Amino acid sequence: MEAGTEKTSPELPLAERLLSGDKRALARGITLVENSDPAGWALVREIYPRTGKARMIGFTGPPGVGKSTLLGALTKHARSCDREVGVLSIDPSSPFTQGALLGDRIRLSDHFLDEGVYIRSMASRGALGGMAEAALQAALLMDASGKQDILLETVGVGQAEIDIIDHADTVVLVLMPGSGDSVQALKAGIMEIPDVIVVNKARHPLTDSMVREIKGVLALGPHMDWTVPVLRTEATVGTGIDEHYAHIEQAGTLEDRRRRNLMNEVLGLAAVRLRRELERSLAGDQDVQELLERVVKRELDPASAAELLLERRRGDR
Amino acid sequence: MEAGTEKTSPELPLAERLLSGDKRALARGITLVENSDPAGWALVREIYPRTGKARMIGFTGPPGVGKSTLLGALTKHARSCDREVGVLSIDPSSPFTQGALLGDRIRLSDHFLDEGVYIRSMASRGALGGMAEAALQAALLMDASGKQDILLETVGVGQAEIDIIDHADTVVLVLMPGSGDSVQALKAGIMEIPDVIVVNKARHPLTDSMVREIKGVLALGPHMDWTVPVLRTEATVGTGIDEHYAHIEQAGTLEDRRRRNLMNEVLGLAAVRLRRELERSLAGDQDVQELLERVVKRELDPASAAELLLERRRGDR
Repeated sequence: MEAGTEKTSPELPLAERLLSGDKRALARGITLVENSDPAGWALVREIYPRTGKARMIGFTGPPGVGKSTLLGALTKHARSCDREVGVLSIDPSSPFTQGALLGDRIRLSDHFLDEGVYIRSMASRGALGGMAEAALQAALLMDASGKQDILLETVGVGQAEIDIIDHADTVVLVLMPGSGDSVQALKAGIMEIPDVIVVNKARHPLTDSMVREIKGVLALGPHMDWTVPVLRTEATVGTGIDEHYAHIEQAGTLEDRRRRNLMNEVLGLAAVRLRRELERSLAGDQDVQELLERVVKRELDPASAAELLLERRRGDR
Repeated sequence: MEAGTEKTSPELPLAERLLSGDKRALARGITLVENSDPAGWALVREIYPRTGKARMIGFTGPPGVGKSTLLGALTKHARSCDREVGVLSIDPSSPFTQGALLGDRIRLSDHFLDEGVYIRSMASRGALGGMAEAALQAALLMDASGKQDILLETVGVGQAEIDIIDHADTVVLVLMPGSGDSVQALKAGIMEIPDVIVVNKARHPLTDSMVREIKGVLALGPHMDWTVPVLRTEATVGTGIDEHYAHIEQAGTLEDRRRRNLMNEVLGLAAVRLRRELERSLAGDQDVQELLERVVKRELDPASAAELLLERRRGDR
């Protein structure tokens, strides 16, 4: 399948091959990052000075609204302008139905053999955290390998997915007629206002009223110097993104966004590592099990138990 | 407003007054917990042996589906059976529209003067975490003060809200015709299957097809020894909850659920404290700012910066 993707000799270091645009090196690098392999972190460290050039565009919205079809259209458009594209799908598969988005991903298969397009999905790994962090590392690898538009696709339900969107320069919310819950969440201020909104399946008879409803919700919000476009055809989405990008570049907010996102990434990574350290230090610890048993028996309250755990951990050093 | 609620002398210790069912003491206790006041943690520690008697019932679902009307009906039902009720609403107000659920809460006002009912809302405090933990502490205070049914209301969007539901014995998902996004999320396995589903606004012409769609989604899932009822009238929800409760008590899974929930609470509290410690140790630290500046300039990658932060923190001890 990947014959002909090997532009450089496999004897060269991974970072060098990745920087030269070798697809196989990029795939290998993302796998390392996904597995939390120390070699993955080392790779990102090495290529990091060569990142920051790509546009990071985040796509969110409920499942089934046609995000992947839209990504396919945007990929086609970018390729016609000779821009290289990376697509990163965060797949929140559960034990209930595994690989829910697989069908969606297949719609991107037109581009599987295109050297200028790299498509990858990562499975979200439960509530433990660390997914958002791994996804950004993967996006950095795509950036370093020469991808100019990086499309981050998530399903906007869990916090982990929302965190990934926090790493985007431009956030696109994808809806369709029937996405009443999302419109209610926007209206109630529970979902953050994105930069661009698309109502997919535009031929549906209820599209007009949905677009009107969304515009009404946006009109209630605070006045900003960017007017969120509510689009209804795939062809206009690329333009909407370009305009938002031009706006944030000109207003100087692109740099602010990136600074904030990078700081959140550093803090997020540190917090995830702390939590992993904690869980590792507790696993299989007989004393900890006894502590938890006392909580279950209502002898010791949860907060005191947490405090005792942290004290023990400090003492162990 | 609260005249006549003072059953015991205010000179008695707070814990004693709370345990005797004094509404004002309960209000004071929850405020302490909400403000992370050490006196709040001490109070929970003191009353914790007297908890574990109440039924914890969690309600989730998108905004605008009529959760609070349903809670009102369930409260009325419980009162007619002489059961005391605590209602805890997690209000995810944002800077965009503050107090989004206030209108809903007003529907519960029938019960404001009822001694056997205590209604409280807590605002969610951003992505920092700790909300789920504070909410459970508040629920424990309600339990100790003699509330027998504790109704935890959240909006099922962010992870923090979902974590709160993790503390419930029985989880009720509230939907309405138009909740297409939630049904898609259930179908895709992104939203966990609840114990009871209610489709509110049952007179809507699309209710029948929505109930059928949900039953179809549930039929695709794994076979479990509990069949999730899909209900459509407020009157049947109380029965659905009672039946689920009887089922988990009989099957012995109530105890398992509580054990798992308490363990998650302990780990969650420990993780939140670790993160707070980290953020406190970094705030206003000149060296940290310089570290972050190097990340922004692409001189130092985020993971290495996180590692340096953690090393510094260890060194500071």
